[in-house]
Amino acid sequence: MSLSVAASTQALSAEQVFTLLERVRQKTPRVHAITNAVAQSFTANVLLALGAVPSMTIAREEVAAFAGGADALLVNLGTLDEERRAAIPLAIEAARTAGRPVCVDPVFVNRSPVRCAYARELLGLKPDLVRLNPEELTALLPERADADALIEAGTVFAVTGPEDRVESCGEDFLLRNGDPLMSRVTATGCAGGAVLAAFLSIEKDRALAAACGLSVFNIAGEIAASRSGGPGSLVPELLDALYCLTDRDIGARLKTG
Amino acid sequence: MSLSVAASTQALSAEQVFTLLERVRQKTPRVHAITNAVAQSFTANVLLALGAVPSMTIAREEVAAFAGGADALLVNLGTLDEERRAAIPLAIEAARTAGRPVCVDPVFVNRSPVRCAYARELLGLKPDLVRLNPEELTALLPERADADALIEAGTVFAVTGPEDRVESCGEDFLLRNGDPLMSRVTATGCAGGAVLAAFLSIEKDRALAAACGLSVFNIAGEIAASRSGGPGSLVPELLDALYCLTDRDIGARLKTG
Amino acid sequence: MSLSVAASTQALSAEQVFTLLERVRQKTPRVHAITNAVAQSFTANVLLALGAVPSMTIAREEVAAFAGGADALLVNLGTLDEERRAAIPLAIEAARTAGRPVCVDPVFVNRSPVRCAYARELLGLKPDLVRLNPEELTALLPERADADALIEAGTVFAVTGPEDRVESCGEDFLLRNGDPLMSRVTATGCAGGAVLAAFLSIEKDRALAAACGLSVFNIAGEIAASRSGGPGSLVPELLDALYCLTDRDIGARLKTG
Repeated sequence: MSLSVAASTQALSAEQVFTLLERVRQKTPRVHAITNAVAQSFTANVLLALGAVPSMTIAREEVAAFAGGADALLVNLGTLDEERRAAIPLAIEAARTAGRPVCVDPVFVNRSPVRCAYARELLGLKPDLVRLNPEELTALLPERADADALIEAGTVFAVTGPEDRVESCGEDFLLRNGDPLMSRVTATGCAGGAVLAAFLSIEKDRALAAACGLSVFNIAGEIAASRSGGPGSLVPELLDALYCLTDRDIGARLKTG
Repeated sequence: MSLSVAASTQALSAEQVFTLLERVRQKTPRVHAITNAVAQSFTANVLLALGAVPSMTIAREEVAAFAGGADALLVNLGTLDEERRAAIPLAIEAARTAGRPVCVDPVFVNRSPVRCAYARELLGLKPDLVRLNPEELTALLPERADADALIEAGTVFAVTGPEDRVESCGEDFLLRNGDPLMSRVTATGCAGGAVLAAFLSIEKDRALAAACGLSVFNIAGEIAASRSGGPGSLVPELLDALYCLTDRDIGARLKTG
Repeated sequence: MSLSVAASTQALSAEQVFTLLERVRQKTPRVHAITNAVAQSFTANVLLALGAVPSMTIAREEVAAFAGGADALLVNLGTLDEERRAAIPLAIEAARTAGRPVCVDPVFVNRSPVRCAYARELLGLKPDLVRLNPEELTALLPERADADALIEAGTVFAVTGPEDRVESCGEDFLLRNGDPLMSRVTATGCAGGAVLAAFLSIEKDRALAAACGLSVFNIAGEIAASRSGGPGSLVPELLDALYCLTDRDIGARLKTG
């Protein structure tokens, strides 16, 4: 599902992508990630390999202190237990109050009506970015007008799949990097959401930040896939590639538009 | 402890094992795994490398929707917290109602009386398969007659160790694949349980499904151990081996009773 | 922050370090680790690679049975949720009653007042060892006299960073092994705490045990970094190096004093 069929997509240059990556590496932003138990360790390692710093507590007594002091907040709805349901609104409020960007990843809302209803409430809090796949988007916002209204109000959508599409009230981007082997590793999408949160923390143009973050993560994934014997070796290779990623790597591989 | 000393064991052919593996790869069954926090990520990656799809939520509000829509359910009792204790009966009921196989792995029942009592209640729900080691079996069912009664009623036992024994009211299997290095990696047993659940979803002969699933996982482990410098590199190698496993690998390595 | 500026530090020989490592490998102590969700899997794998056995349940109904039967207890305060807050005092009491050493790792107390207050209560239970970095130490014990009083009473402090300092009422140790790449992998510090707990279980001289445990883990990290292309491959390499670590490795790399 394309949210805005008519919109033309913007080109993205390797220089833009590398410039933002370098800003992440220099600022070492802290990303507070409320994410599912399956994804926590890999997400933390992706953030560290990128040059960011993860924090991950979900305890309601302290999540506001952690989220309010972080440079960005990721809210991922996988394994949505009681502790996380209690923590998420507190964390979003703290991040909002501190003026930090909020990225929401409504994992599997197409498989659970309870989760879908919860995710819709979060959309009412106007996150800066929503990352999801086409099936999740259809479940979350069956009416096209509702998605358009959110985009008008400033939320950016990053719709991921074989192609990734960034939709915003300004520029849109179409991105074609990545490798199918990435989908054979759990939580690659979730960890990619944390990369987007890190990029949002260093760039006010949210659509540009999302496009650059997606490109960095997917190019690292491509490099890793080219060096891997399967999904097991993809994990260390992806983290190494992210850690070592150069402007030449990006220049050689970036596929947009 | 052998459950049925008198029973002769059945041979298993490499062709049978590979045929079932290919059926898993073609059907890409979804396995809902309620498993311990330590095992979640590795279990998800094992399922993906095998060709199955994991889901893992433990939230009581949505676990029935996830388990009822899955092709098989794994219930692993490691780190048995409140959330999981509440979720497990709901998930089993949903899987039963949908006619899906249920696999129970009563991890460490020999170390905690509370957990052992809880596991005995689950046996009353007549799971399709129970995977455990001899110490756990002795703790769970100290009376031989109780184990025999469960087997008579249709539950299959997969008793794992240096040798693996599949015991059923039909055929039994004795399997000798695997490598000691696998026990130096956390959650290999737990992840192996998820493989059994995936195989149960594509084959009605539960004992045959269990025997093939154990063989696939342990042969992948053997190949990985032969390529590893220790338990760290065993993990990516095992996932790569599982992903790439061929009929020739199985033919060259399968060791049965 | 150095706790005892005036104290001279003790030399540590490669033979002492290897002797204690071999005692861990021969005894295969069980370490019950109440640790954060992000660190659980890596911590379990570090313990297994070392030659110890992990258990990790946090359920209040059974944590006492697990902790009381273990050879050492690790309490790590990362992701401090309700279940863990309830479990920790029960586990410490059970370990104390059984005469087992208790190691506390007050992760991120400098980022959360609630967590800092909780950690101070734990100090009142007089753990055998506290592992933390200088920032956490300053937050936890802003008054130097309070730290000195705890050390007088028998608690050992392992203050980790580019240099590691072990402070006790007896000998002190200054250790200089490790590699900066280790800080780009999540939970290396947390997993290192579990190694200290394993060493405490086989050696009554707590400061010596801590110094040897830190050296073993950091030398394995150095070897891994020398073989890694980044933080991704560091993980399997570290586990392999820990599993294979010899007296020659330690002799060639140990840096103390």
